[in-house]
Amino acid sequence: MNSTARDHWVGFDLGGTKMLAVALNSADQPVGRARTKTRGAEGSAAGIKRIVGTIHEALQSANVDVSRLAGIGVGCPGPLDLDRGILLNAPNLGWKDVPLKQELENAFGCPAVIANDVDIGVYGEYRFGAARGAFCALGIFPGTGIGGGCVYRGEILRGKIGSCMEVGHMRVAPEGPRCGCGQRGCLEAVASRLAICGAAVQAVYRGEAPALAEACGTDLSNIRSKALARSVAAGDVAIERILRDAARTIGVGLASVVALLSPDCVVLGGGLVEAMPELFVDEVESAARDAVLPSFRDVFEVRAAELGDDAAVRGAAALARQHVEQITS
Amino acid sequence: MNSTARDHWVGFDLGGTKMLAVALNSADQPVGRARTKTRGAEGSAAGIKRIVGTIHEALQSANVDVSRLAGIGVGCPGPLDLDRGILLNAPNLGWKDVPLKQELENAFGCPAVIANDVDIGVYGEYRFGAARGAFCALGIFPGTGIGGGCVYRGEILRGKIGSCMEVGHMRVAPEGPRCGCGQRGCLEAVASRLAICGAAVQAVYRGEAPALAEACGTDLSNIRSKALARSVAAGDVAIERILRDAARTIGVGLASVVALLSPDCVVLGGGLVEAMPELFVDEVESAARDAVLPSFRDVFEVRAAELGDDAAVRGAAALARQHVEQITS
Repeated sequence: MNSTARDHWVGFDLGGTKMLAVALNSADQPVGRARTKTRGAEGSAAGIKRIVGTIHEALQSANVDVSRLAGIGVGCPGPLDLDRGILLNAPNLGWKDVPLKQELENAFGCPAVIANDVDIGVYGEYRFGAARGAFCALGIFPGTGIGGGCVYRGEILRGKIGSCMEVGHMRVAPEGPRCGCGQRGCLEAVASRLAICGAAVQAVYRGEAPALAEACGTDLSNIRSKALARSVAAGDVAIERILRDAARTIGVGLASVVALLSPDCVVLGGGLVEAMPELFVDEVESAARDAVLPSFRDVFEVRAAELGDDAAVRGAAALARQHVEQITS
Repeated sequence: MNSTARDHWVGFDLGGTKMLAVALNSADQPVGRARTKTRGAEGSAAGIKRIVGTIHEALQSANVDVSRLAGIGVGCPGPLDLDRGILLNAPNLGWKDVPLKQELENAFGCPAVIANDVDIGVYGEYRFGAARGAFCALGIFPGTGIGGGCVYRGEILRGKIGSCMEVGHMRVAPEGPRCGCGQRGCLEAVASRLAICGAAVQAVYRGEAPALAEACGTDLSNIRSKALARSVAAGDVAIERILRDAARTIGVGLASVVALLSPDCVVLGGGLVEAMPELFVDEVESAARDAVLPSFRDVFEVRAAELGDDAAVRGAAALARQHVEQITS
């Protein structure tokens, strides 16, 4: 093989606190990676320098010269202009109107694409993980909110300009609690990790969750997914009930998505699901089957994500590759 | 032009009570039509003969020889196997496992495609009506149930085997009324024409709707969409309130679909909307804007369907044409 052939790809995950670059070879296998803090508050110009530097580091760690880079895919938070490759607004970073695609294409001399961070994680699971080969792969990722994404016939479902599939903002409880978006009764206001932690600290305060009380106290910020899993394992039935209720609410929301999109594979991911995959898969699946239009009861299966943090970076690189192969074919 | 060129198309609407065939020329313009009763109870073999006969009639009325027929598209009720072209189950007709595509291809010697009747109506509005040129066109048709369909980037969104987009079976009211599907709180249990008529006859019985009482009495079967419109025009405020409440419930359901699919054009159709387009468009749009994730508030517009019954037949013919042009290109 020609040593200057452009046969490597970079997948990049731009998170609110850290960024991750992974270099992949022509078999879509990770061969190098680099990670650093995002430091959004330093501004987008400094941020782009850090992104470029982190990509160089990942290539170096793989011993791949930058001249062999064929394309870059980036998973980003916030509203995006997908075609123009612009981060319109990333409140977590304090960035606005950042032409990320153009900046990366200038810096590396190869095509770059951007995508929503949740979408690209679902795409990664579709290409390499739990949803391989699905006709319609729906991903649901409960975290601070509840992210969603859908890969339909091999392509990420999207809006005219930006991404869509905001499963966390389906209205599941008309008179339910206030959501961060300002509405009431959104799925994520009832069943996100944040909503679960809010209920958990109340249980701790009421003395109903001794194991969690000892591990974390009543400070919501201390309650991580693994602590919740340990609390359940230690016998905090109140915490288990909170988790199962939330999972069932996600299942009822899923039932509506199934009636609309009829996904054949539903992937649950994120730290909470990783900490308790069986609990979430069982409750979400059973609640969805109970709640869905009967003729759709058997069209879908629910699985835990397989790739963890690698889903987004491998998905982003694969999306860049698909894009480049489309424009050059 | 060669007189034996295959340059005409047939769109067919297989309804529960009547069937409609329309012949279209190479400019997608209707040039002939025929209509007859479906008589599902006579069985599917007799039904196929009636379908074939009705298509012949439509061609004759256009003075087009059957040798010039290039393709047939059929909108069908019930669960379908889209790729194999089989009506799996049409409870309204009492038909099961009818290989309609194959039967029509044998009878006419040209390709045939089948599609869900609501989907194909939305496709017709996308190609020739209110949703022309939309990136993502969502159709909502309140009738006995509430049908839905979506044309995304020029293609009908579908499930792996059959159709999807069952907006009537989104769960909008967890503790709401029982739906015909067996679940509780589906959108169509609250806001279909049937649910509206159920509320209307109660208002008549209570003496709250004098105009409707005089026109229709308390027999639900007598209450047609036009009678509801006349009752509102005559000052039956109770009926107007029932209609506006139902439209707003549809709007809240729409808000969830917008958060998922971000349609740029939402088309409302069916007899009820045709009878009161302004009331429905205004209330659905305003309720959806009030209820949706704020960043999606301005991505969509709501319009009344433009083509009435012709949406399905023109859509079906255009789908057949698209299919034939894809396989021959």
